[in-house]
Amino acid sequence: MPTCTAGQLRSLTSRIFQAAGVPEEIATKVSSSLVESDLMGHDSHGVIRVAQYLRDLRRGMVDPRAELQVLKETPTTALLDAHWQFGQIAAAGGMAIAIEKARESHLAAVGIERCYHIGRLGEYALTAAEQGFVGMVLCNTGGRTVAPFGGVGRTLSPNPMSYAVPAGRRKPFLLDFATSMCAEGKVRVARAAGKEIPPGWLLDKDRRPTTNPADLYDGGVILPMGGHKGYALCLLLDMLGGALTGHGCACLPEYERGNGVFMMVVDVEAFRPLEQFQDTVDRLFDEVKAGPTAPGFAEVLIPGEPELQTKEERERQGIPLPESTWQDIVREAGQLGVEIDIH
Amino acid sequence: MPTCTAGQLRSLTSRIFQAAGVPEEIATKVSSSLVESDLMGHDSHGVIRVAQYLRDLRRGMVDPRAELQVLKETPTTALLDAHWQFGQIAAAGGMAIAIEKARESHLAAVGIERCYHIGRLGEYALTAAEQGFVGMVLCNTGGRTVAPFGGVGRTLSPNPMSYAVPAGRRKPFLLDFATSMCAEGKVRVARAAGKEIPPGWLLDKDRRPTTNPADLYDGGVILPMGGHKGYALCLLLDMLGGALTGHGCACLPEYERGNGVFMMVVDVEAFRPLEQFQDTVDRLFDEVKAGPTAPGFAEVLIPGEPELQTKEERERQGIPLPESTWQDIVREAGQLGVEIDIH
Repeated sequence: MPTCTAGQLRSLTSRIFQAAGVPEEIATKVSSSLVESDLMGHDSHGVIRVAQYLRDLRRGMVDPRAELQVLKETPTTALLDAHWQFGQIAAAGGMAIAIEKARESHLAAVGIERCYHIGRLGEYALTAAEQGFVGMVLCNTGGRTVAPFGGVGRTLSPNPMSYAVPAGRRKPFLLDFATSMCAEGKVRVARAAGKEIPPGWLLDKDRRPTTNPADLYDGGVILPMGGHKGYALCLLLDMLGGALTGHGCACLPEYERGNGVFMMVVDVEAFRPLEQFQDTVDRLFDEVKAGPTAPGFAEVLIPGEPELQTKEERERQGIPLPESTWQDIVREAGQLGVEIDIH
Repeated sequence: MPTCTAGQLRSLTSRIFQAAGVPEEIATKVSSSLVESDLMGHDSHGVIRVAQYLRDLRRGMVDPRAELQVLKETPTTALLDAHWQFGQIAAAGGMAIAIEKARESHLAAVGIERCYHIGRLGEYALTAAEQGFVGMVLCNTGGRTVAPFGGVGRTLSPNPMSYAVPAGRRKPFLLDFATSMCAEGKVRVARAAGKEIPPGWLLDKDRRPTTNPADLYDGGVILPMGGHKGYALCLLLDMLGGALTGHGCACLPEYERGNGVFMMVVDVEAFRPLEQFQDTVDRLFDEVKAGPTAPGFAEVLIPGEPELQTKEERERQGIPLPESTWQDIVREAGQLGVEIDIH
């Protein structure tokens, strides 16, 4: 298991994608998004995806040369067709449009249909927060691995959502989670590592609670986060990401693959001077962090802090790659004739 | 324990508020909102609140004659000061402004500071959905009864959020929940009824898990819904409802009382023809409801269905009032010289 720098990993991943026919600019951006997820500790959305993206490139399920098309537009809204572009490119493009509109109109909403996998949602929400806006990104997704509350069928999917809010002297707030008990990727990672998953996440094919991750891939189902609350959020995300954009909801016949995306940007200054708002947010975070900790916790963390702490650590110490991820990359590089300069 | 019709209860409650000095139009609207919560089965936001509202009227903490003031406005946004108006009036007024702006600009966001208790959030979100828009209402609140994830302090509050989405032949989707394991009112109701609460909701003053609702009122604390996920949503609501509006976050010194409110309205037609969208939503709900049910569930319900089923039932059979709520109303009516015509 090698530990490599973010720069090394970005360069290798980008060269692999380029060797697979992805234009340099696109390859660089997609690699950068994947490695950023690894830096932040979200390995499930990092370079572990390289093999999957290459497979889907070969099958024509992602079009690295597609352009983002505006289907419908107003000063505050846009509906885009990504034509199965890499999701990282489409989502970053959609967020750029949303921020531009919010600068003019104080508020913007952008929907994107036919995105290939957009990766870590927090990346795009943070782009808004870094420019002083409140950013929201949500999407629907496929897989049908999640049961509705009150049901046990594989009807819904682990639809994720993200919000980022700018703070002042503190780092931005970043909410970024799946509305099911866990993302499917976490079950996959546990299975690969031969580990159990916590109770309450899964039912097996006979609809009994289980902690064996393999049960998900044998007819099992993931439960919604927080019972009826996560279920309601999951459905909402299918309606906004899937139905409103025209991408399609994962449990309906028109759904093909990938993510239907919905994002919103709010201009803080339409309500309060940004600095005043940021000062309040800083003081809110101070107060939350000043409280007593629960057993097993060294400090109370603000959402986003764990990711940003991991990023600082991995920027210093390098990114530790799981052996299976590394072997996948070595194999793909070999097949594509890409030289590996990480040892 | 009397069972009364919604009409009887609205009339009695309105006459009580009027006798306490509330103008007729305001009294009628507030009563109507409270009784609508009882109809929907959310008794914690129904006429159980009459005694509290009367007490706060006497203490000058709610101003029944205050006007909603626009502090700052753009074609897409408005920041309002409710001057401690009844929250039901302020929130309905804010939503009317948001819908009007969304009709013109396709998107609107309205913040309201200094609202007295706004009651059931779903009421205002539904107003948007009934007119073909996606409606979102969230607020912060006080009480400091909720711990952050990783902490055990009474730092946060059970901030609630609501989304409503229009369906076609089906009833609208309605998400309406507190971001903590439960609203404080549910613990209060359990304590009054001498019942235990489910495990996982509360820690006692020594930070041990407890199912005794009385422990909350003896230094205990409510846990966030879904661990770090509900905690992140709870903080987000304090930032949007409290910090962005200027109302103040409940754990900071500038917070006085009541709700800081943030609402958004999205015009479906800016993305897809409304009928097409509604058709997709109907089919999504059909598919979700068609799946197998979990043990103990007769059917899979769409968020909002339990409330709307209860409403139909209570419109037919009347609203059963808990004895303690009824005795409070009888006492207040007696003191204000209001005749009681429900027996």
